[in-house]
Amino acid sequence: MDTPDVGELTPPERTLMGPGPSDVPPRVLRAMSTPLVGHLDPAFIDVMDDVQELLRYVFQTDNEYTFPVSGTGSASMEAAFTNLTEPSDTVVVPGNGYFGERMASMVRRAGGEPVVVEAPWGDPLDAEDLAAACAAHDPDLVALVHAETSTGVLQSNFADLAAIARDHGALVVADVVTSLGGVEFRTDEWGVDAAYSAAQKCLSCPPGASPLTLSGRAMDKILDREAPVRSWYLDVSELQEYWGAERAYHHTAPITNVYGLREALRLVAEEGIENCWARHERVAGAIKAGVEGMGLGLNPDPAYWLPTLNAVVLPDGVDDDAVIEYLLEEHAIEVAAGLGSLSGDVLRVGCMGHSARPRKALATVVGLGEAFEAQDADVDVAAGIEAARAALDRTG
Amino acid sequence: MDTPDVGELTPPERTLMGPGPSDVPPRVLRAMSTPLVGHLDPAFIDVMDDVQELLRYVFQTDNEYTFPVSGTGSASMEAAFTNLTEPSDTVVVPGNGYFGERMASMVRRAGGEPVVVEAPWGDPLDAEDLAAACAAHDPDLVALVHAETSTGVLQSNFADLAAIARDHGALVVADVVTSLGGVEFRTDEWGVDAAYSAAQKCLSCPPGASPLTLSGRAMDKILDREAPVRSWYLDVSELQEYWGAERAYHHTAPITNVYGLREALRLVAEEGIENCWARHERVAGAIKAGVEGMGLGLNPDPAYWLPTLNAVVLPDGVDDDAVIEYLLEEHAIEVAAGLGSLSGDVLRVGCMGHSARPRKALATVVGLGEAFEAQDADVDVAAGIEAARAALDRTG
Repeated sequence: MDTPDVGELTPPERTLMGPGPSDVPPRVLRAMSTPLVGHLDPAFIDVMDDVQELLRYVFQTDNEYTFPVSGTGSASMEAAFTNLTEPSDTVVVPGNGYFGERMASMVRRAGGEPVVVEAPWGDPLDAEDLAAACAAHDPDLVALVHAETSTGVLQSNFADLAAIARDHGALVVADVVTSLGGVEFRTDEWGVDAAYSAAQKCLSCPPGASPLTLSGRAMDKILDREAPVRSWYLDVSELQEYWGAERAYHHTAPITNVYGLREALRLVAEEGIENCWARHERVAGAIKAGVEGMGLGLNPDPAYWLPTLNAVVLPDGVDDDAVIEYLLEEHAIEVAAGLGSLSGDVLRVGCMGHSARPRKALATVVGLGEAFEAQDADVDVAAGIEAARAALDRTG
Repeated sequence: MDTPDVGELTPPERTLMGPGPSDVPPRVLRAMSTPLVGHLDPAFIDVMDDVQELLRYVFQTDNEYTFPVSGTGSASMEAAFTNLTEPSDTVVVPGNGYFGERMASMVRRAGGEPVVVEAPWGDPLDAEDLAAACAAHDPDLVALVHAETSTGVLQSNFADLAAIARDHGALVVADVVTSLGGVEFRTDEWGVDAAYSAAQKCLSCPPGASPLTLSGRAMDKILDREAPVRSWYLDVSELQEYWGAERAYHHTAPITNVYGLREALRLVAEEGIENCWARHERVAGAIKAGVEGMGLGLNPDPAYWLPTLNAVVLPDGVDDDAVIEYLLEEHAIEVAAGLGSLSGDVLRVGCMGHSARPRKALATVVGLGEAFEAQDADVDVAAGIEAARAALDRTG
């Protein structure tokens, strides 16, 4: 067969203000160009130790079993569900966004029975509804999304919901894909048994090694399973031999991704996790102020605003694809369309990790304003920009 | 909790002559430090097209469904088994090495029934044994290891075995983890329905995005399944919406790993796949000649010698861990211990990708010789080095 003739890799420059990936800091990119050692090299064992210590810090946990899963965020998500769901287990999942549906699919594939707690897309779950579902179904697991990437909703009463689930004897699984490192989350203090995330959101690392933490209760359940986990690759009872004290071979770790994650987590530790949370809120506040200053709204109620993912309600008559294309072509900024029942109604504007910088928030507000103007929308772009600058204390 | 204080990433330099990862060329490392675009960016779609075209070339296939799985080699392996095994399917797997056992575990977790064709570790499978197993068990799948990383055995009659399996109506799955790009393998010509590999062996790319190719027959089986695939993350019927014509979101691809894989595959295309195969054989031939020149042997029969993984039989009284440690500390060379029934009897010396260079083969022979001398083994190191040099046409 013919030999392919493929040119040099020359992707365009982008500012990544979508739902992920976010921009990657130069130090992390440099870490990813480090020559490799083997995945069982004593030097790599040290790197593993570092990454685990750093992950415990960003998860705010003392859990021993805290490590990166060898895949992108959906791999750590499935690791949580496929290990913690035994055949015929009942698992409560949220019905208010795209990722609750994915949870249900993973639960079913693991042999479990999902029970959906409904709320409209764009609203958070209601504590009473969760309590009713727990009372009615006596679930083995309760899975909750802390930060819904599809709707921009922060489940801001997360600790209360976790307490309800634990009161009913369920293990609590937390999706913190779009919040870990960007919005306050406290695994141990909030009584969470399993939490998973991705590298490419608030941690600003390329995707490929994805944080997972498991409490002692969660590990007990996994190690006491009768039926084997339905995935060999994601079987925590085997993975723990590599990421636990033994450091025995299971599969080859994604060495370069672990290097990158280590550096990304180091940056969080250098800044301080509380400072990271505060920066995300401040910078995203400028996007929020800018959008509102133009005369537009964000989707959720302010009480549930998720700084890391802003669901901007589109002006009447404005086409989302046209806005996305304009921003990409004229400003080299990536934002994304709405998903599911919000498709066509909102734009998803992320503000995560190294993308959560004042200059990028301002550029995004300017770009959004111009994109709306280009479609003759009734927006006050100048007022939006001034509101964003004021939110950042940039105005004189 | 305390903020971790973790220092700069400073792994030592290594020459990777173990069973993988292999050394990564500077061009691939540089590709992995490229700033990211989004996984749905039009520019990334072009990168996906390139990677798929290049993968078809290294697999020697026209299969449309040829793409990298978002994980390390065991993820592409499990993708093959969990998609192609339906509950109560019968799957023939080889019993002559470590990776046949892993296949059996994956098949069982998918709900299938593995049937093992036995051969001693260090021997290839026998065609008559496979034919007998097919006749007795009427398997739905026959899985074969082309290059056994645990034993250094090349299943050199692979095409014949595949023909036997197909004659019995089975789909043929090929493990080419340690051969793709390093040893002749022809997916279409040899009648293979599914083949999977890893990035970090003969392709010299950091692990994290792992080649998989599926024939039309294999895709028909997957798309006609009654029971859903037991992994959401690895479900090809959903993955094909991203890697197929639609390019619709499934999960976030490991963008940086795909960048690296593209560059690594470009290097193979530039060299030419046949030239790559020839280089591996020539350079590994120097390791083989060096070891034999010292008075030692390789494990398998020469007819089944696998250039990419050389199972060096240890001299009497020599401790494998001491040799491994000496090579790492004195020569910065990584080699590995034997696995399973060969543990303690052999060293596994890889020769793959960018590690398959004459200077690295010579350094390995010198290092091995010194490590054996350090344990007072009865070896003729000078003769080994001269034999290795001669094999490379380096002697005057």
